[in-house]
Amino acid sequence: MSRRRQIYEGKAKILYEGPEPGTLIQYFKDDATAFNAQKKGTINGKGVINNRISEYIFTRLAHIGIPTHFIRRLNMREQLVRQVEIIPLEVVVRNVAAGSISKRLGIEEGEMLPHTLIEYYLKDDALGDPLVSEEHIAAFNWASHEEMQDIAAMAIRINDFLSGMFAAVDIRLIDFKLEFGRIYDGDFSRVILADEFSPDNCRLWDFNTNEKMDKDRFRRDLGGEEEAYQEVARRLGVLSGEDN
Amino acid sequence: MSRRRQIYEGKAKILYEGPEPGTLIQYFKDDATAFNAQKKGTINGKGVINNRISEYIFTRLAHIGIPTHFIRRLNMREQLVRQVEIIPLEVVVRNVAAGSISKRLGIEEGEMLPHTLIEYYLKDDALGDPLVSEEHIAAFNWASHEEMQDIAAMAIRINDFLSGMFAAVDIRLIDFKLEFGRIYDGDFSRVILADEFSPDNCRLWDFNTNEKMDKDRFRRDLGGEEEAYQEVARRLGVLSGEDN
Ligand SMILES: Nc1ncnc2c1ncn2[C@@H]1O[C@H](COP(=O)(O)OP(=O)(O)O)[C@@H](O)[C@H]1O
Ligand SMILES: Nc1ncnc2c1ncn2[C@@H]1O[C@H](COP(=O)(O)OP(=O)(O)O)[C@@H](O)[C@H]1O
Ligand SMILES: [Mg+2]
Ligand SMILES: [Mg+2]
Repeated sequence: MSRRRQIYEGKAKILYEGPEPGTLIQYFKDDATAFNAQKKGTINGKGVINNRISEYIFTRLAHIGIPTHFIRRLNMREQLVRQVEIIPLEVVVRNVAAGSISKRLGIEEGEMLPHTLIEYYLKDDALGDPLVSEEHIAAFNWASHEEMQDIAAMAIRINDFLSGMFAAVDIRLIDFKLEFGRIYDGDFSRVILADEFSPDNCRLWDFNTNEKMDKDRFRRDLGGEEEAYQEVARRLGVLSGEDN
Repeated sequence: MSRRRQIYEGKAKILYEGPEPGTLIQYFKDDATAFNAQKKGTINGKGVINNRISEYIFTRLAHIGIPTHFIRRLNMREQLVRQVEIIPLEVVVRNVAAGSISKRLGIEEGEMLPHTLIEYYLKDDALGDPLVSEEHIAAFNWASHEEMQDIAAMAIRINDFLSGMFAAVDIRLIDFKLEFGRIYDGDFSRVILADEFSPDNCRLWDFNTNEKMDKDRFRRDLGGEEEAYQEVARRLGVLSGEDN
C-alpha cells in the first residue's frame, strides 16, 4: 500500500507503479463483471485464487519458451510484472463453441469446432470489444504483420500446452482470452504475454460432468463460483502451500 | 490368445491380426531392452502400465485433433489399433539435453535446449537406428515432403500438449520418441500417430527432485523401475479403475 502510485484500475485488477522502472504491480480484486460491466458483483477470494493460478500458468508457460510479463508473486493478491505497451486486442482461442460464438454463428454450445479458432476483438469497452479481422488490425495498425504472426503462434502453443495441463486434472479447456504487449529494447520490440490467465478469462468444463468451473457460473447466475474457482486451484495443486 | 495370427514380435510388444481387416492387436510385454537390445531384462507389470498410459495419452491426443491408430483397449495388456504402413523413422522430440544428444554434441545432461528439437532416426535395428537428416529422408523416399511437414507439425503439437499434461502432475517431459504410419483411403493416404507413448520411449523427470521416472532407470541400473512406471501412472490418474 503506502505511497505507491496507482496507474490504472480495471474491472478485475489494479495496476501500481512497480519498485523498478519498467515494472508494475498487478493487484487482483474480488470484483467480477460480465457483459461489458453491465453486471457487477464480487466473488469472495477470487483475487487470491486468480493471482495464484495466473502465477502457476505463466511460470509453466515460461518453461516451454513462451515469454511473459510475470516476474514473481509478491503476496496473496499481488504480483510483480514487466510493464508492457498493451496491444489493444483480446486474443480469443476456441476449441469448443460456447458463449458469443455460439450466439453469433448459431453453433450449439458444447459443439467441437472443426478446428481450433483464433479470434481477435478490439479491446475497447466503450465499443463493447467488437470482433475484428486481421484486415482491420493491419489497416488501423494495432499490430504489425510480424507481431500478429508471433501472437498466433504463441496462442496455438499456449492452447496445446494448457489443454494438456487441464486435461491432466480432468478439465476441458473450452476457450480463453489472452492479452499481449510490447517490450522495447533500444530500437527493437518484441511481443510477450501479459495480463492474466484465470477462470475469469476462460471456460473450463469438468471432463466427466461438463460442469462449468469458470466465470460463466457468475455470468449465468449458476451459483457456486467461489467453490468452482477453488476447485480449479485445488486440482492444479495451487493453494496447497503454507503461505496462501 | 486362441488361433489368432501373430504378425510381428518386437522388443516390447507383439502384434496380432485384429478382428477386422485393417486392425491389429498390440500386446504389451514386460520385456525391456536397451542399447539396441544389447541389454535385456524385464520390468514387472510394465506391459500393463504402458498399455494404460498409452491408451490415456492417445485418447487425449485424439481430443485435440491428433489422429492416432488407437481404437480401444481390449484388456490388461492388449489394445486394438488401426494397422498402418509404418514410416521407418523414429521421430524424437527434445526439450532438454539427455541421452544420445548429450553424448553426441557434448551438451550436459539436463541443459535446456535453445529451443525444442526434432530429430529423425532411421528405424533399423541392424544399423543401430542411425540419425538421418531431412535430406536423407527425401533422397531415399522414406517419407514425402508433405508427410514430413505433417509429422513435424504433429510432433510439435504433441510436445506442447504432453508437456502441459505432465507439468500438471509435476513431471518434466525431457524428450520422447514417436512413430507414425500411413493409412490409405483409395488413392489417398494420410499420416497418423502409431506405436505407443509410455515411459519406455520418453524421459520424465520429477519437477522438484529431477528423479528419473522412465526407462533410464533400467538403462542405467538405477533400480526402482517398477515403482517409477507405477508412479507415472498414478499421477496421471491411470490405474485407479476397477478393471486394472
Ligand atoms: N504487463 C502489463 N503492462 C501494462 N498493462 C498491463 C499489463 N498486463 C495487463 N495490463 C493491462 O492492465 C489491465 C488489467 O486490469 P483489468 O482489471 O483486467 O482491466 P480491464 O478492465 O481493462 O480488462 C488491463 O487493461 C490490461 O490490458
Ligand atoms: N498401427 C500399427 N500398424 C503396424 N505396425 C505398427 C503399428 N503400431 C506400431 N507398429 C510397429 O509394431 C512394432 C511394435 O513392437 P515393438 O516391440 O515396439 O517393436 P520394435 O522392437 O521393432 O520397436 C514396432 O515395430 C512398430 O513400428
Ligand atoms: Mg481485463
Ligand atoms: Mg518399439
